[in-house]
Amino acid sequence: MPKLNFSRHVTSLFSPQPSNGSTLEQKLNPSFGRSPLRLTPSPYISDKSLTKRWSKLATLTDQALLLDEMTLEHAELYNKNIEHFIGTVKLPVGIAGPLRVNGLHANDDYLVPLATTEAALVASYNRGAQLITEAGGASAMLLNEGVSRTPVFIFNSLLEAGQFVAWVVTQYDHFKHIAESTTAHGKLHDINVNLEGNHVYLVFEYHTGDASGQNMVTIATNEVYHFILSQSPIEPKEAFLDGNLSGDKKPNAHTLRHVRGKKVAAEVKLSKQLVEKYLHTTPEKMMRFGQVTTTGAALSGGIGVNAHYANALAALYIACGQDAACVAESAVGITRMEVSEDGSLYASVTLPNLMVGTVGGGTGLPTQKACLEIMKLSGSGKAKALAEVAAALCLAGELSIVGAFCADHFSRAHQKLAR
Amino acid sequence: MPKLNFSRHVTSLFSPQPSNGSTLEQKLNPSFGRSPLRLTPSPYISDKSLTKRWSKLATLTDQALLLDEMTLEHAELYNKNIEHFIGTVKLPVGIAGPLRVNGLHANDDYLVPLATTEAALVASYNRGAQLITEAGGASAMLLNEGVSRTPVFIFNSLLEAGQFVAWVVTQYDHFKHIAESTTAHGKLHDINVNLEGNHVYLVFEYHTGDASGQNMVTIATNEVYHFILSQSPIEPKEAFLDGNLSGDKKPNAHTLRHVRGKKVAAEVKLSKQLVEKYLHTTPEKMMRFGQVTTTGAALSGGIGVNAHYANALAALYIACGQDAACVAESAVGITRMEVSEDGSLYASVTLPNLMVGTVGGGTGLPTQKACLEIMKLSGSGKAKALAEVAAALCLAGELSIVGAFCADHFSRAHQKLAR
Amino acid sequence: MPKLNFSRHVTSLFSPQPSNGSTLEQKLNPSFGRSPLRLTPSPYISDKSLTKRWSKLATLTDQALLLDEMTLEHAELYNKNIEHFIGTVKLPVGIAGPLRVNGLHANDDYLVPLATTEAALVASYNRGAQLITEAGGASAMLLNEGVSRTPVFIFNSLLEAGQFVAWVVTQYDHFKHIAESTTAHGKLHDINVNLEGNHVYLVFEYHTGDASGQNMVTIATNEVYHFILSQSPIEPKEAFLDGNLSGDKKPNAHTLRHVRGKKVAAEVKLSKQLVEKYLHTTPEKMMRFGQVTTTGAALSGGIGVNAHYANALAALYIACGQDAACVAESAVGITRMEVSEDGSLYASVTLPNLMVGTVGGGTGLPTQKACLEIMKLSGSGKAKALAEVAAALCLAGELSIVGAFCADHFSRAHQKLAR
Amino acid sequence: MPKLNFSRHVTSLFSPQPSNGSTLEQKLNPSFGRSPLRLTPSPYISDKSLTKRWSKLATLTDQALLLDEMTLEHAELYNKNIEHFIGTVKLPVGIAGPLRVNGLHANDDYLVPLATTEAALVASYNRGAQLITEAGGASAMLLNEGVSRTPVFIFNSLLEAGQFVAWVVTQYDHFKHIAESTTAHGKLHDINVNLEGNHVYLVFEYHTGDASGQNMVTIATNEVYHFILSQSPIEPKEAFLDGNLSGDKKPNAHTLRHVRGKKVAAEVKLSKQLVEKYLHTTPEKMMRFGQVTTTGAALSGGIGVNAHYANALAALYIACGQDAACVAESAVGITRMEVSEDGSLYASVTLPNLMVGTVGGGTGLPTQKACLEIMKLSGSGKAKALAEVAAALCLAGELSIVGAFCADHFSRAHQKLAR
Repeated sequence: MPKLNFSRHVTSLFSPQPSNGSTLEQKLNPSFGRSPLRLTPSPYISDKSLTKRWSKLATLTDQALLLDEMTLEHAELYNKNIEHFIGTVKLPVGIAGPLRVNGLHANDDYLVPLATTEAALVASYNRGAQLITEAGGASAMLLNEGVSRTPVFIFNSLLEAGQFVAWVVTQYDHFKHIAESTTAHGKLHDINVNLEGNHVYLVFEYHTGDASGQNMVTIATNEVYHFILSQSPIEPKEAFLDGNLSGDKKPNAHTLRHVRGKKVAAEVKLSKQLVEKYLHTTPEKMMRFGQVTTTGAALSGGIGVNAHYANALAALYIACGQDAACVAESAVGITRMEVSEDGSLYASVTLPNLMVGTVGGGTGLPTQKACLEIMKLSGSGKAKALAEVAAALCLAGELSIVGAFCADHFSRAHQKLAR
Repeated sequence: MPKLNFSRHVTSLFSPQPSNGSTLEQKLNPSFGRSPLRLTPSPYISDKSLTKRWSKLATLTDQALLLDEMTLEHAELYNKNIEHFIGTVKLPVGIAGPLRVNGLHANDDYLVPLATTEAALVASYNRGAQLITEAGGASAMLLNEGVSRTPVFIFNSLLEAGQFVAWVVTQYDHFKHIAESTTAHGKLHDINVNLEGNHVYLVFEYHTGDASGQNMVTIATNEVYHFILSQSPIEPKEAFLDGNLSGDKKPNAHTLRHVRGKKVAAEVKLSKQLVEKYLHTTPEKMMRFGQVTTTGAALSGGIGVNAHYANALAALYIACGQDAACVAESAVGITRMEVSEDGSLYASVTLPNLMVGTVGGGTGLPTQKACLEIMKLSGSGKAKALAEVAAALCLAGELSIVGAFCADHFSRAHQKLAR
Repeated sequence: MPKLNFSRHVTSLFSPQPSNGSTLEQKLNPSFGRSPLRLTPSPYISDKSLTKRWSKLATLTDQALLLDEMTLEHAELYNKNIEHFIGTVKLPVGIAGPLRVNGLHANDDYLVPLATTEAALVASYNRGAQLITEAGGASAMLLNEGVSRTPVFIFNSLLEAGQFVAWVVTQYDHFKHIAESTTAHGKLHDINVNLEGNHVYLVFEYHTGDASGQNMVTIATNEVYHFILSQSPIEPKEAFLDGNLSGDKKPNAHTLRHVRGKKVAAEVKLSKQLVEKYLHTTPEKMMRFGQVTTTGAALSGGIGVNAHYANALAALYIACGQDAACVAESAVGITRMEVSEDGSLYASVTLPNLMVGTVGGGTGLPTQKACLEIMKLSGSGKAKALAEVAAALCLAGELSIVGAFCADHFSRAHQKLAR
Repeated sequence: MPKLNFSRHVTSLFSPQPSNGSTLEQKLNPSFGRSPLRLTPSPYISDKSLTKRWSKLATLTDQALLLDEMTLEHAELYNKNIEHFIGTVKLPVGIAGPLRVNGLHANDDYLVPLATTEAALVASYNRGAQLITEAGGASAMLLNEGVSRTPVFIFNSLLEAGQFVAWVVTQYDHFKHIAESTTAHGKLHDINVNLEGNHVYLVFEYHTGDASGQNMVTIATNEVYHFILSQSPIEPKEAFLDGNLSGDKKPNAHTLRHVRGKKVAAEVKLSKQLVEKYLHTTPEKMMRFGQVTTTGAALSGGIGVNAHYANALAALYIACGQDAACVAESAVGITRMEVSEDGSLYASVTLPNLMVGTVGGGTGLPTQKACLEIMKLSGSGKAKALAEVAAALCLAGELSIVGAFCADHFSRAHQKLAR
């Protein structure tokens, strides 16, 4: 008789548990011998003092680590970006570069601050940056921009949904006026209608200036949303401010081909000699790695094809006061490596979902601002350049990691630098 | 004549550029009037002193912000986790909770430290945590574990690929022995063969103990990889240590259904009254939001269905010394909300790709360790509990944000807390 | 020691082979004792006589079955739709309906011819059609139209790609004129630019009248493509007439949200009583099945959510002279089932990729034309109605199969009708 | 003010309608002036005579076309494969080949019957087949087999779901015994558990002998399903025979990497000279087309990467009595083209979801059986060979179409052969 393949779930689920002899039922039963819960009164968006919070925490850990003097000094500032503030966590920052970027908006040799706790990461990006810079820099081009909110309206029938759409298309100028009345910098530049059964999803897409813009588009769309609810001649049975077409904090195939935030392509051409000098491999081998891992990505059902954009973006976003949760959507795109007719390596990255800003969010916090300043990218008028630098940085990382795999150094680098 | 839809790419590409009158060609031309580049000698994995690095940076920003006294004190420690160290970036930490978790491994009321620069985030998770706790806590269950490296071997033909596989299957005991000789805690628990044309992808999947394990599995698989290269009776034409089936730093459909890191489900049942008290809406409306946005996710070609796991995971990972880049792969899963027969709300999350550890990586850094200590989850024997807490935290966030959309508070909360 | 999970590949690969004792190597070796191959001279698009072809086949099977008298009679006709013609295959046709459709373009009670060799299929669609008709019919709405060809142009650099795009956007009127000069019915209604590294993909999207239009858009785009190659001031390094953004014969996430061919939504509202009478279940149970299987689809990484559109579309396409290979792209979309406030069932389907025509392709062949005539949908001016009927038919099938699963009749029906 | 992008939905939705002046509302209103509906009594699985059916249809079309003498002769046979039988549709069959296959199971020069109404299709496959054959044939290898049904069981809680799984894993031998008691040829060879919140999806995967097996696995799993419902110590709150993890009639990312039906790889190596002779292009150019269109597939969110498997499979499935609706799931996989060191072209296809059989379904119908006989693949013991031939045929088609795009013949061929 053929052997059945016992699910590994099951073995992990019912493997012997740590120690206390409790059964599965006891473990999952909330009433299992616990001390009474001390619920804090009205905890939502509270304004408790730091002292009171630490009175509960002080027995657990060393207050001085999180609530050092400098942190206390800036406490008021931090309080604007967070609730239930108890201190700061410190992440080491390393510098990669200079990374020369020849972009539409970014034109400089950048020293790129990266915040990470993963050894080898900065070294790898630094290697790629040096290589790109010695090759004359990465070309970079902002290709598209747009951040969306996507309210959904639900009707009794297709007929009503159709009638609603017929009204909606007469209101675009109103919608634009209403949306833009809520923001100094946001521009509603596209409205798209998506009908599915008796659902109508409206896609409101904005240019958000130098802010990454999630809050801006929420507030602007909310105004339009309420205008629609109060004015539509066809009353929706139900409605929600977002119907999940926006790609907020989630990768999806739609924004891979379209845009969320900023879409940037970056490229570099590397001679055989430079590839050998920095990466100890050949353009041919790197192209082959690209082909084989593109097939691997297809086999796994990924979105786009890249090696590790997430490493670059998480480290850059954390250092520079960006919304680190946007790594979820930003770390998609297409990496390509090809051998040119002259034997050099052509490498490009195209990232359609860079959610970056140089104003708002965490960009004004002291150390985050300092990191932006190191790149001369703090404040107004710099977001497009930051997006191009982010793409070039991803390119540096793709070159370095692919080089490491091709030269069979990948494991060695991690053994040496990360123990 | 029908109107053609001029691509927005194009308008953004050629919209008037900032100021300096340079043409597109000049902008992309690396030789365009730049001061000579100062390449640092042998920059890869260098050991430059902090002082030397800051001599370049001091004119750009305030050294004291990144290189405060406490940071200097711990510099040696930081140097082990990063290269080209220049200081630390400080992220504010807020506390959400208590969050009661009734898990197989996590059984406590957790005060969860979240590091973020996005206002409203901690407040939202705190609200969800309070709600879950008042309801008696979230059940949570570790369902599966596994971290993989996936080397690829390329042959001249299907025939050779088949012969290679025939040899490989006789070597599993050897592979296991070799892999586990490199690690005190890692266990090679599965090997899977995936043949595509003349490519053979081998999937080596490990249990990694209390470490998140990316380095561990790389080093262990590297040993097996070199054993194969030297011993295989069929010589591969080419080979790479990873062929991109592992899901490292990338979401994909395969690991959504299978596992990467730790797979955990968490659930809670909420009475109508609790939903009204905390979220100012009804179970029915929340179920409807779930249905509508699940359709939205399908329309957009997402991976799984969730609202904003990425927010919880980025903030928790950063606070607790996890690899924040893993948000890319971790923030996928399935959220479900349903109305039970008794009118209460059933809500669950299932996250198959939680990459967490309580040893290694950034978990030993001072402030990160402090954050783990606040949850009593620092050190050996705690990773499974951390995974269950992470899932319960995601559940809290899903409840809070869905509640906000249903009560039409979403925009208001962001207006109030995030300006 | 944990058990390793031996891949099933391997066992199937090396399980004992049928009979002749040959080794794997022999099996895959083309020179293994075979009689000399008789290659037919100049076989491509040859004009061999039927007689000559059958001289090779007559020993293998009964010529009279494929080459019956009626087939011989129409041989000249068939020869225009196929090469190397040897006869016809006969597929049984069953009738489902009447299916009442209340559409923008389809307004009738349709008797729908379905060609299939799978027992139970027509019965199931017939049941759904009867149910819909007794409920007053399905509403149906054509929402969008468009068939695309997507040539790709490859440049030396981003810079050249950008310069090319700058030229392209000045040429839209020319492109439209050139494209439409090749066709009496096709209209180029949209051009979209998609830049990835140094690749430029142009998406030319057409309205194709009453033809499904694949050949029409190929020929029209080919003209534009050659105009571009000869006239572009920036010479592409390479170019291909299609770069695989069109979705031709392949499902993808992009055309799920956008369109390929015709996008149609159809819906019906069914009272509790009708659900009970025809399906022996309840609206609640059907909604629950919808929810659970939507989660199943998400877990599996599908495109959209449906039960079995492919059954309806394959049978309808084959009967009516459509391109049956387009089932690959057409059988995607979103099925939804919900309980309305009055306890009735709301069910909808939205199919964005219906590739149907009522002229061209196989629509003029004798039996295929007869099938279209049964629906009064043969010839010019009927393609939009055919698309709406196709969607309503899919709706009928979704209701019937979901009903069968809910009433636990699914297996029984297949046991009874399909042995 | 920027121009808003008016959705094309809307214009198509409200463009002037054909003729009768009815409003949208009238169009969608079922009561709009229609003659009374004649519902056939008890229509489900009825046994109406052909005569009675044609009494309704005879005014619409020519009965003699669908109900020719040969069809009448075999009517009894057809009645077993279809309900509401009214005649047959005739599809022209062309022969492609000889196609030499050197497989594990298929070892011959095959004349492949293809049923299609699309001109140029057979010519293209024939060209690819001739090329492969002159090159010595395609290697082909059956890699894996499995058809699944995936019942889902829903519980009150994770706890109950876990307890259920704990019971399930003790019952595998019973399940296997019960399942296999319903079938002479099917073997239950794997059971997999997939837990999502309080849902448990069980994946029962079978080897189905020479049948494609959908009905076999439904009937077998139904027995196990009812055993579980009656015997499980933990009673499911709800349950359905399929939870949509099976991939039945739908492509998904999971079965791309795993299997549905039969997984086969096929490959061929072509000299520069042969590529030039048959395809009028070079290996380099074909590799480049492969790279560019792989990127195109990734940009579009497709499943796998291929050019037009669907054309081969639809035509082969229809000719040979296979379930043509399975084109939906079968037409996925990975095509690769690479230049070998000696300058020749390496091309492979890997198709994991071939749903083919040589017994059951439509394989016994007269003309379908004739088509199988032409390949000597009718009846028991031939399904594995048929799967290998199907893969080799897909390979032939990929070579031919990619060649046509590279030689810029694609449009010309369609212009010439398809008008």
